Amino acid sequence: MNNFEFYNPVRIVFGKGTIPQVQKYLPKDRKVMMLYGGGSIKRNGVYDQVVQGLKGIQWTEFSGIEPNPLYETCMKAVERIKAEKVEFLLAVGGGSVLDAVKFIAAAACYPGKDPWDILTSGGSVVKAALPLADVLTLPATGSEMNCFSVISRKSTQEKLAFGSPHVFPQFSILDPETTYSLPKKQLRNGLVDAFVHVMEQYATYSVNTPLQDRQAEAVVRTLLDVAEDVLSKQDYDSRATFMWAATCALNGTLSRGVIEDWSTHEIGHELTAFFGVDHAESLAIVLPGVWKHQFENKKGKLAQMARRVWHILGGDETSQAKTAIEKTVQFFHSIEMPTRLSDYGITEAGIQKVVERFQQRGTVMGEHQNIRAKQVGEILRLCL
Amino acid sequence: MNNFEFYNPVRIVFGKGTIPQVQKYLPKDRKVMMLYGGGSIKRNGVYDQVVQGLKGIQWTEFSGIEPNPLYETCMKAVERIKAEKVEFLLAVGGGSVLDAVKFIAAAACYPGKDPWDILTSGGSVVKAALPLADVLTLPATGSEMNCFSVISRKSTQEKLAFGSPHVFPQFSILDPETTYSLPKKQLRNGLVDAFVHVMEQYATYSVNTPLQDRQAEAVVRTLLDVAEDVLSKQDYDSRATFMWAATCALNGTLSRGVIEDWSTHEIGHELTAFFGVDHAESLAIVLPGVWKHQFENKKGKLAQMARRVWHILGGDETSQAKTAIEKTVQFFHSIEMPTRLSDYGITEAGIQKVVERFQQRGTVMGEHQNIRAKQVGEILRLCL
Repeated sequence: MNNFEFYNPVRIVFGKGTIPQVQKYLPKDRKVMMLYGGGSIKRNGVYDQVVQGLKGIQWTEFSGIEPNPLYETCMKAVERIKAEKVEFLLAVGGGSVLDAVKFIAAAACYPGKDPWDILTSGGSVVKAALPLADVLTLPATGSEMNCFSVISRKSTQEKLAFGSPHVFPQFSILDPETTYSLPKKQLRNGLVDAFVHVMEQYATYSVNTPLQDRQAEAVVRTLLDVAEDVLSKQDYDSRATFMWAATCALNGTLSRGVIEDWSTHEIGHELTAFFGVDHAESLAIVLPGVWKHQFENKKGKLAQMARRVWHILGGDETSQAKTAIEKTVQFFHSIEMPTRLSDYGITEAGIQKVVERFQQRGTVMGEHQNIRAKQVGEILRLCL
Repeated sequence: MNNFEFYNPVRIVFGKGTIPQVQKYLPKDRKVMMLYGGGSIKRNGVYDQVVQGLKGIQWTEFSGIEPNPLYETCMKAVERIKAEKVEFLLAVGGGSVLDAVKFIAAAACYPGKDPWDILTSGGSVVKAALPLADVLTLPATGSEMNCFSVISRKSTQEKLAFGSPHVFPQFSILDPETTYSLPKKQLRNGLVDAFVHVMEQYATYSVNTPLQDRQAEAVVRTLLDVAEDVLSKQDYDSRATFMWAATCALNGTLSRGVIEDWSTHEIGHELTAFFGVDHAESLAIVLPGVWKHQFENKKGKLAQMARRVWHILGGDETSQAKTAIEKTVQFFHSIEMPTRLSDYGITEAGIQKVVERFQQRGTVMGEHQNIRAKQVGEILRLCL
């Protein structure tokens, strides 16, 4: 097991009817800005519940944060925040709104000329941020219980991530009933996003972390078990389980002391940036490709997953590991998630664009630091 | 799943050679008191490592905190703290030292006449505490990552618990190498303590918490897997796994949204208070008794554990649940942990003493609130 630190001060308030508790946890003496997306929270009643919780608090609002939130939109919010002397940010929505609000919180306090530095530095330049909290309405990204954020820039077709302890939410309210109004596609995306988060912290090489392995397998098996109910009915317990599993998939517990590999995310981000593929859709394409390309390096863990998650006990390690890849693809297909570039009309020409970007950046990825631009091309060709 | 809150701001610093990091995380401008037990930390080098980390910091020390730490000892520390204007407490040791320091931190700030109120109120009277941190040397109680503490009072032979968010450690340093010098008995006790912590949050009735169930099974299976190596050799990875598993067994994650039953602990505390049985020893006696007495209520979860943790797939629910009890007792015996009152010379007369105490207190326990003094007697008679 590698040495590690773990620190996660986010207060989770979880369950039915918990949204009005924003009242209990918001500071009473600070001007709050509620930030949200395209207005679905007005149709499903979440907006009204939050407003009820804001009674007695001075607040304003900012709407229009898009999926794969844009730097350009975020900077508009920063301007408003400065002009209106906002002191506390309340994100209401899914991972995109949360990620945007984390960036906005940091950008509002950034003394440098160009807040895009926050993203190019990975967050190391962040020395302060406005306090923030959230009401989560879409289980997927885990953003509600970590200090990470991913932001896109329209002008340059870039999508970058940053992390900073200054952008941990002070509290996150998770009411599984808010998911009842989600379209099936968003639920499917959330299931895949959470599944792949676990895999990026699991399917690498082992450094003897049996507990963390089993904790990861617990989340993955749970996601597989609830997926059908999540997609086919409005059942409280399966929604609650899904919501908490998506949080636990990326709240830091699974990655403590283990070897991670976020190459699926890094490659997937470029598919979103260039071709507008949903984040989860990009992951479902890239993950099997990375696993096939890095098969020899990952087969030990993949075989372990086959044995423990799918109870595949026959065959040798190689065949078990291959079965894990097949089972994963079958899972994606079972929830109507495509897994090929061709499903989105992306061809060799598109792969070239992505490869060139990795060439320009000189990115090195993978747990063995053996995935560069050339290998990205090889991986994506396995996904055509 | 029941509604829940989760909040755990403890910073964990985990791994080889991490003890000197007390320097990094201790406040430089506050007078620190290092508190420890009987001096084993002087023999195994931990004391010297901590002292190295205290360079440049004004500090004093208090030693002599005993296992099942005594109120009387704690109050001596409180006197010293007040006299010497100590502002930060650093516990160095196992769960007993940590629990003592949590109580001392609260008692030093308690404005009431009798700090024993902190324990009789379960912690609700605690409105402030001195900041505290710790260097853990014994994996067992989970005290390093929660806000609970158990204190004994010699004069009245009482042992009570309290909890308060004010006594979360600011940071906890966990170096698995500190466990190399532990006697086998303490390692065995730690394994049992962690095992039973998981069970008190698991072996009740189900409220549809599949993720939490699997997270609990992950910790238990891991403890079973590492036990032999922990007891038979000085192997870093198995000690690290044990140490992190014991922390994860009681850091709040396993109990979110589930039904708990701490009756084994409550009954066990009295065996320690009256007869000086080690805490873990008391749990190993009482747990099988509670399970047999409450068999019909707990058999669903026990059978699930039999299937998932021990892969017992044949037979019906009743026989699987019985096997889970047998396997648990076998595990305790395999690590040389006795499981009967008679192993400690405790007879019917002793049971009567315990029953009378529960009668006086009017305690009601169990997930169905059906364990009172009479049932405590019935349970303990199953443990003779």
